[in-house]
Amino acid sequence: MPPVSSPFPHTQPVELSKCYRLLNHGPTVLVSAAHGERRNVMAAAWSMPLDFAPPKVAVVIDKNTLTRSLVEASGGFALHVPCKAQADIVLAVGSATGREVDKFERLGLRSTDGRRVDAPLIEGCVGWMECRLVPEPHVQQAYDLFIAEVVAAWADERAFGQGRWHEELPDALRTLHYVAGGRFFAIGEGLDARSAL
Amino acid sequence: MPPVSSPFPHTQPVELSKCYRLLNHGPTVLVSAAHGERRNVMAAAWSMPLDFAPPKVAVVIDKNTLTRSLVEASGGFALHVPCKAQADIVLAVGSATGREVDKFERLGLRSTDGRRVDAPLIEGCVGWMECRLVPEPHVQQAYDLFIAEVVAAWADERAFGQGRWHEELPDALRTLHYVAGGRFFAIGEGLDARSAL
Repeated sequence: MPPVSSPFPHTQPVELSKCYRLLNHGPTVLVSAAHGERRNVMAAAWSMPLDFAPPKVAVVIDKNTLTRSLVEASGGFALHVPCKAQADIVLAVGSATGREVDKFERLGLRSTDGRRVDAPLIEGCVGWMECRLVPEPHVQQAYDLFIAEVVAAWADERAFGQGRWHEELPDALRTLHYVAGGRFFAIGEGLDARSAL
Repeated sequence: MPPVSSPFPHTQPVELSKCYRLLNHGPTVLVSAAHGERRNVMAAAWSMPLDFAPPKVAVVIDKNTLTRSLVEASGGFALHVPCKAQADIVLAVGSATGREVDKFERLGLRSTDGRRVDAPLIEGCVGWMECRLVPEPHVQQAYDLFIAEVVAAWADERAFGQGRWHEELPDALRTLHYVAGGRFFAIGEGLDARSAL
């Protein structure tokens, strides 16, 4: 992969062989997409890694969303790992529809273009994955499930480095894990396990 | 659904309409399955809810696992949400293969039979979902991805009730979120978001 500039300050590329680690602990994500002049971003609690190499992800994108029509038209999207400082934004982009509101404008979201996929990357997150759709029309239609290959990944070096989330980090940069009704958990303390076998 | 007895002390049924909440915040899970005289359990960091009603889940189960052959033979499995007190067990069942070791015996795992699916339920977890496979041979083969309907769900009432994880609970009952190399995060503190729109 030729070098490309990092999208934001404090941001470093994540090796593709390690990018599943951005999602491995189950954070709530943002999904952005663009097509032509339109762009949108939504929240998704339902996403997961699907493979290591090439890295793949799976995410549920409801039929009613503008994001879905943009993903289907453009063949790509960006997954973002937002942090505690962004909880109000995550709730807002998960509550409003881009068919009625320009969420970027209304929320003052700063973004830059994806380096490899036509999808906006939103500033202030702690992880980003640019994803190319692996078309699976049956699972998209039957389960609202989208499978994609990760073609570029980035992380805020204050939160993630050497292929791992840092455990000592500013509280505002902890990842979010959605409960319901506007309530989240932040990720907590690390612990070591020793195999009992 | 006719009443059936709860599998363990402190355990209550979870309404099926709310059972996605057991997985919504992204915990690492255990997957158990049985067929004939054989049974097994493995760990999986890659699972997520897939639908509300009827509730569905998706989980990645590698081709090399004994659990997978049991799931394919029996058409069902149980997802468990383990807790901090079980971290060593989660690592152990995620490291050893049931083709070589009877993990139940070696680890002294206490279990009971699933109420609706032929899969063991392991004591000491904080959530359980009994799942019937929705056969999708192509996605199973191409992505190791298994889709299932949840037909019964249970939770430890000290950790989950009224359709939500408790935020004040014994530390040992916090859910686990896998990082890598035997390291987990425990879930942390709750926070309220207010939509910025």
